[in-house]
Amino acid sequence: MPSQNPFQLFESEKPRLVKKGEVLIKSGQKASEAFYVVKGCLRSYMVDAKGKEHIYQFAPEDWIISDLEFFKNKGVAFLTIDAVENSEVKSIPTSRIFNITAEDPALVQEAFNKFQNRVYALQQRVIQLLAYSAEERYQEFIKTYPNLSNRLPLKMIASYLGLTPESLSRVRKELVKGR
Amino acid sequence: MPSQNPFQLFESEKPRLVKKGEVLIKSGQKASEAFYVVKGCLRSYMVDAKGKEHIYQFAPEDWIISDLEFFKNKGVAFLTIDAVENSEVKSIPTSRIFNITAEDPALVQEAFNKFQNRVYALQQRVIQLLAYSAEERYQEFIKTYPNLSNRLPLKMIASYLGLTPESLSRVRKELVKGR
Repeated sequence: MPSQNPFQLFESEKPRLVKKGEVLIKSGQKASEAFYVVKGCLRSYMVDAKGKEHIYQFAPEDWIISDLEFFKNKGVAFLTIDAVENSEVKSIPTSRIFNITAEDPALVQEAFNKFQNRVYALQQRVIQLLAYSAEERYQEFIKTYPNLSNRLPLKMIASYLGLTPESLSRVRKELVKGR
Repeated sequence: MPSQNPFQLFESEKPRLVKKGEVLIKSGQKASEAFYVVKGCLRSYMVDAKGKEHIYQFAPEDWIISDLEFFKNKGVAFLTIDAVENSEVKSIPTSRIFNITAEDPALVQEAFNKFQNRVYALQQRVIQLLAYSAEERYQEFIKTYPNLSNRLPLKMIASYLGLTPESLSRVRKELVKGR
């Protein structure tokens, strides 16, 4: 699905193709790009000391994805960002998002709205991880990403939700039965 | 400790005293205030279906605390905000934070920086809840809130960290032994 509402800053950028599995930003390396997804799906994740992946965010069509850690960490990325599907993405240096105050007010307003939505979404995500049952988490996932549940491997969705694949599988079966 | 770096928007507001336990915003009621803590400590939390409290955020001196849910929910608060200690707070309508684009560029820049920090902090918080052990979570808590660990009941810190009070108590004992 082509994007209906691209962030103005990305408008003049040319999209490029990335292959499924291609790494765009690697944890521990210098990086400061923000990506806008035209088509396909990216994700950001970290790997813990035991080698387990924890998915922070998915970015399907019309989402922006980045890693803000580098602001605090001398430009070094904390998260890895890669493509979950063959995708089409635009990129800008993340710093541009934070240096737009001299530009037009409409752009500032747009960036504010994006941040407001992002903080709100993250508030929801923290609350879900703290307080929600496996079933509630999965239902929130479907609300946040209405088109992703059939596109992603169960293992990835479980990782994003902080659940074991077994728990998520059980929840899905119960939801199907309940319908 | 008096604030060194108050957000400009709150500067002209008069602080008011709130008593420990006083509720400033109640979940389910109309609310749209943002609070700046001059002295003391506020918190935001939600109560789940079983009556268990889950603490989303603490706001000691120089922190801003609000609930962005109302933006999406017809002005109705999702979180409850109350005072953990006798406190001194300033408040403004949260909408003012999102309507400052017509004002001076320094203020816009300041708001951007606050949002950037907030998104960064929330990214950290999500990662911790997904991937960090009890000990790592507690150590991050101490980094985020260097002055709070001795001021708050263990039960509240555990709720914020998504741990049982028993786990947190064990972690604290181990840290003391390890020194």
